[in-house]
Amino acid sequence: MDAAAEVDHHAAERAAVRFDVEAMKVAWAGSRHAVEVGDRMARLVASDPVFRKDNRTMLSRKDLFKDTLRKAAHAWKRIVELRLTEEEAGMLRLYVDQPGYVDLHWGMFVPAIKGQGTEEQQKKWLPMAYKFQIIGCYAQTELGHGSNVQGLETTATFDPKTDEFVIHSPTLTSSKWWPGGLGKASTHAVVYARLITEGKDYGIHGFIVQLRSLEDHSPLPGVTLGDIGGKFGSGAYNSMDNGVLRFDHVRIPRDQMLMRLSQVTREGKYVNSDVPKQLLYGTMVFVRQTIVADASKALSRAVCIAVRYSAIRKQFGSQDGGPETKVLDYKTQQSRLFPLLASAYAFRFVGDWLKWLYMDVTQKLEAKDYSTLQETHACTAGLKAVTTSATADAIEECRKLCGGHGYLNSSGLPELFAVYVPACTYEGDNIVLLLQVARILMKTVSQLASGKQPVGTMAYMGNVQYLMQCKCAVNTAEDWLNPVAIQEAFEARALRMAVNCAQNIGQAASQEEGFSERSPDLLEAAVAHIQLIIVTKFIAKVQQDIPGHGVKEQLQNLCNVYALYILHKHLGDFLATGCITPKQGALANEQLGKLYAQVRPNAVALVDAFNYTDHYLGSVLGRYDGNVYPALYEEAWKDPLNETVVPEGYHEYLRPLLKQQLKLSRL
Amino acid sequence: MDAAAEVDHHAAERAAVRFDVEAMKVAWAGSRHAVEVGDRMARLVASDPVFRKDNRTMLSRKDLFKDTLRKAAHAWKRIVELRLTEEEAGMLRLYVDQPGYVDLHWGMFVPAIKGQGTEEQQKKWLPMAYKFQIIGCYAQTELGHGSNVQGLETTATFDPKTDEFVIHSPTLTSSKWWPGGLGKASTHAVVYARLITEGKDYGIHGFIVQLRSLEDHSPLPGVTLGDIGGKFGSGAYNSMDNGVLRFDHVRIPRDQMLMRLSQVTREGKYVNSDVPKQLLYGTMVFVRQTIVADASKALSRAVCIAVRYSAIRKQFGSQDGGPETKVLDYKTQQSRLFPLLASAYAFRFVGDWLKWLYMDVTQKLEAKDYSTLQETHACTAGLKAVTTSATADAIEECRKLCGGHGYLNSSGLPELFAVYVPACTYEGDNIVLLLQVARILMKTVSQLASGKQPVGTMAYMGNVQYLMQCKCAVNTAEDWLNPVAIQEAFEARALRMAVNCAQNIGQAASQEEGFSERSPDLLEAAVAHIQLIIVTKFIAKVQQDIPGHGVKEQLQNLCNVYALYILHKHLGDFLATGCITPKQGALANEQLGKLYAQVRPNAVALVDAFNYTDHYLGSVLGRYDGNVYPALYEEAWKDPLNETVVPEGYHEYLRPLLKQQLKLSRL
Repeated sequence: MDAAAEVDHHAAERAAVRFDVEAMKVAWAGSRHAVEVGDRMARLVASDPVFRKDNRTMLSRKDLFKDTLRKAAHAWKRIVELRLTEEEAGMLRLYVDQPGYVDLHWGMFVPAIKGQGTEEQQKKWLPMAYKFQIIGCYAQTELGHGSNVQGLETTATFDPKTDEFVIHSPTLTSSKWWPGGLGKASTHAVVYARLITEGKDYGIHGFIVQLRSLEDHSPLPGVTLGDIGGKFGSGAYNSMDNGVLRFDHVRIPRDQMLMRLSQVTREGKYVNSDVPKQLLYGTMVFVRQTIVADASKALSRAVCIAVRYSAIRKQFGSQDGGPETKVLDYKTQQSRLFPLLASAYAFRFVGDWLKWLYMDVTQKLEAKDYSTLQETHACTAGLKAVTTSATADAIEECRKLCGGHGYLNSSGLPELFAVYVPACTYEGDNIVLLLQVARILMKTVSQLASGKQPVGTMAYMGNVQYLMQCKCAVNTAEDWLNPVAIQEAFEARALRMAVNCAQNIGQAASQEEGFSERSPDLLEAAVAHIQLIIVTKFIAKVQQDIPGHGVKEQLQNLCNVYALYILHKHLGDFLATGCITPKQGALANEQLGKLYAQVRPNAVALVDAFNYTDHYLGSVLGRYDGNVYPALYEEAWKDPLNETVVPEGYHEYLRPLLKQQLKLSRL
Repeated sequence: MDAAAEVDHHAAERAAVRFDVEAMKVAWAGSRHAVEVGDRMARLVASDPVFRKDNRTMLSRKDLFKDTLRKAAHAWKRIVELRLTEEEAGMLRLYVDQPGYVDLHWGMFVPAIKGQGTEEQQKKWLPMAYKFQIIGCYAQTELGHGSNVQGLETTATFDPKTDEFVIHSPTLTSSKWWPGGLGKASTHAVVYARLITEGKDYGIHGFIVQLRSLEDHSPLPGVTLGDIGGKFGSGAYNSMDNGVLRFDHVRIPRDQMLMRLSQVTREGKYVNSDVPKQLLYGTMVFVRQTIVADASKALSRAVCIAVRYSAIRKQFGSQDGGPETKVLDYKTQQSRLFPLLASAYAFRFVGDWLKWLYMDVTQKLEAKDYSTLQETHACTAGLKAVTTSATADAIEECRKLCGGHGYLNSSGLPELFAVYVPACTYEGDNIVLLLQVARILMKTVSQLASGKQPVGTMAYMGNVQYLMQCKCAVNTAEDWLNPVAIQEAFEARALRMAVNCAQNIGQAASQEEGFSERSPDLLEAAVAHIQLIIVTKFIAKVQQDIPGHGVKEQLQNLCNVYALYILHKHLGDFLATGCITPKQGALANEQLGKLYAQVRPNAVALVDAFNYTDHYLGSVLGRYDGNVYPALYEEAWKDPLNETVVPEGYHEYLRPLLKQQLKLSRL
């Protein structure tokens, strides 16, 4: 086996590559430094037996959870021992690749205190959190309340007699439900509840509440805690203790209300501070930038597995009984897989741009310039929705592209899908977010007449005169390689769909009724706007200097694949709005076929550039060396069902059947 | 709790219904008799504690498999005790709803012997199979070979000295891989292998091979057997022992070759019998009809859950803090959910029609009339592909339509998805099947010039002169309610796409090269042809007499929803081929919105008509009484993680962290 393992079954594919793969790794990761840190952390994790995850789908829920606690403690130990930087620690956690309470502690609890706590509160709570003297989670959603935060029922009633808030769950549906890390691990939570003081409901505010004893981890009096039960898939998100929490008149000191934006005084007066609420937007942009980056990560993993296995798997072939053809050589496989490869790169680069946007918006907020807030909100909300939905679909498509074997846990794809799909729902349900985008689009359209110039990613809408009547100049398939033609077609499509919606809404009895009636069309208009942003940022990326032999050319190909694939997929939009003619649509499709042929010889190297270890990929089909079949065969025997040759239950349920000795009760 | 359980939270919805639900049950099930049998068997299963399945996603692989053996034996016991008819027994197994070896025994092993065995072989083997004295499976696919049956490597070499076949696995990739029931349960298999006699390879044939001892279930000498490992999801298909099988020169008597179509004589001569090979087609039509029926079953379950929960779940609402709005009242929810409801009915009726087609083709085959075989193959292959792909996507969409709670195993949707998706791959990968459809479409188009009249579901193509130039007459949104307009638009779209493909292929250097280059377009043309068939059969159904107040009207609405939804989804096809104008596309979309408003008040009753028990649905969200939230809360506590308040692993991995007592090795 060892000698065989040294053979690279992808050697011929890798030898044929037409670009500098090491330079592409830098383009993908963002910098040589990022490649180096990622590489070092990935290998650190892969070489440590505690971080083994190939058995994860076989563990019982309890064993899986215990394994997660073990990995979290071990990761922290390594972070401290090796004195890792924050960047390195983040990378290490990424490559440990197992959802757990740590994600919420660092990703939600700490940022909530940072963003909404006063300086004093930060000084008190953050050092404990940084050292893990307390473990925190983020308790917002309730059993009966998800997207609509204003509908939450949990109450925090100020009691001036004792200077305390009384946290209470008045109904079953007000039970906190879903918060990760809440079920079993957290000692504290930021709890969102309706603030009531002097008999008045001031709406939803955050409170730091201790949930469990720091001595023996038992729930504090009045606190009911549990896990909400199994979730989609084996392994996957079941390592996380998403929890349920009920309060029975639990008292906390007044100073555990997060008081940066508003306070309750000793007397029970509700007062707003002079900190502008808009400051919270910065955090939101940051979180959504992370989600878009995660989308490209998850999608690229799935694509890496599917591309590598498609270069190994053979089916059918020459009519005369010669060797079968690699699945990757089939046009149908290419037409399904290469757009997903292009999407992985597209999402990666738009994610990079969101990092810049975060910096930009932070600076503006500090200067009290709120002029781009609405546009930034539309852009980040929409990118979150479009990239996560596309990624969830794409992972499942990659699984199907691996044929039957993609259905085995050892392919890694079932777990990748199951662990990824919640991204479509958390941090804003994608449909709800797209409707928010649509609302801002409608507002922007309505202001065009008054001459107000849209900004940022909506600036193109200012060009309304031209875009409403422009005609696409494409005459040949090659004309579609011109980024100007692509950009204009996407701008015209997005704008015309938005304007159509606005006109239709205008005919309704009221604006609200029209918006509601036309909401399915509005979703489509919002998607068109966001796809334009992704295409625009990809085009901008490939117009930069990108070092390395052939790297820029590959990215140009992928950029064109992405744009023309979206155009073909949404052909109805482009034709219905008259942005292109049927003939031009056919030419785009023809050019797409030619681009696939150019991607084909570079496909394996383009996924090698993601630089994923076999440990991180966690897929027998996606092995770097392509030695798939012996590995699949070996994996099979590890199933618990194979511990005995004759299965448990044979003597009770199979033998009596076969021997015609079932005990029947004749009726 | 008991008193609360009596409340019907859907009572208002059910009171508002505008049609006779009992009559709709008959329309759905096909007959009053079918409703009665289904009802009786569903209740029999639901009331028997052995058939409990609410704990299934929490069982370990070994316990789940043992549970499957137990259920199979118990089901058989009940079938014998109650002297159930074949129809009743089939229904009972359906409602037991757990994949297991029994499915392959009855669904593949027995039919293979019936279809490919001689009368003598049937007399010998079938009685044993009917009594479960032997358990059989169907061993075709191999580790390295799926769709391409002609590429299988297992050999069956005739040895005239001993009058035996020697079954052998010459390579690792020739290991049988995937057959259900093979891993642990089956005693016998129909094994497909290359028949070699007198030094010549005669291609793939079937052989009955005993695998395990009937005394102690241990594998026979030369036979290596095992399970291939965990698959997608918890519970789901993990109840099935999909297996791996290797042969090391295993000898079987000559008469265990299935000899209905061809034989090997005592001397080793290969001879064809006078039974025409086309007879095997009947079985294929039968199997595919079952798969289409299963698609409507799986889709209707998912839709039932999503519709019922959408009528309970509330989000947002009036701006002034009034009660929140039912999610089912949102146009965006309707525009995603109602087309899936319509699809469930569409697939149900096209499945009914396939039953008729099976009878028809069987009669024709018996009369040696093979004239419709090719068209029948295209139609059944295509319907299998289109309905299973749409159903897999729709289940996941229904899960997303349930928001976060759809991600919980207790919603039933994760398991439904995971257990269903293999249908896209087994019995012909959907892409491979659609390319077969496309090939027949291209052949039919090429014969149009010679005046050959296409038959059956391809008959419309004979109307080529008209359909290539006809113009859609729709002027108002209501015009789209005219089935003639819909039918013509779908026929024109399908034919024009096929003709376009044929023309493009004609320009290539060779027919094969053109077909390969254009295969992504050919897939789209094949889908258009199959969608036309589904629309046509739905229209034909609603033109029949359908008893019951308002039933026909509801089905007409759903038929229009299905057709106009497909039109909107594939608008690019209709516009690019000039079948309709952008204006007419917009009118179709407008009419679709109006249809949703008509479906809305009947939605809950339309899923009640499926007549599913809470046991069969297996979903807290889809409960008949709508009492969702208390049930979700109760389910949570059953998770093994909730057995202790303080989780296992606390003392080892959480306390040392919190107490700053991790043992660090300072480097």
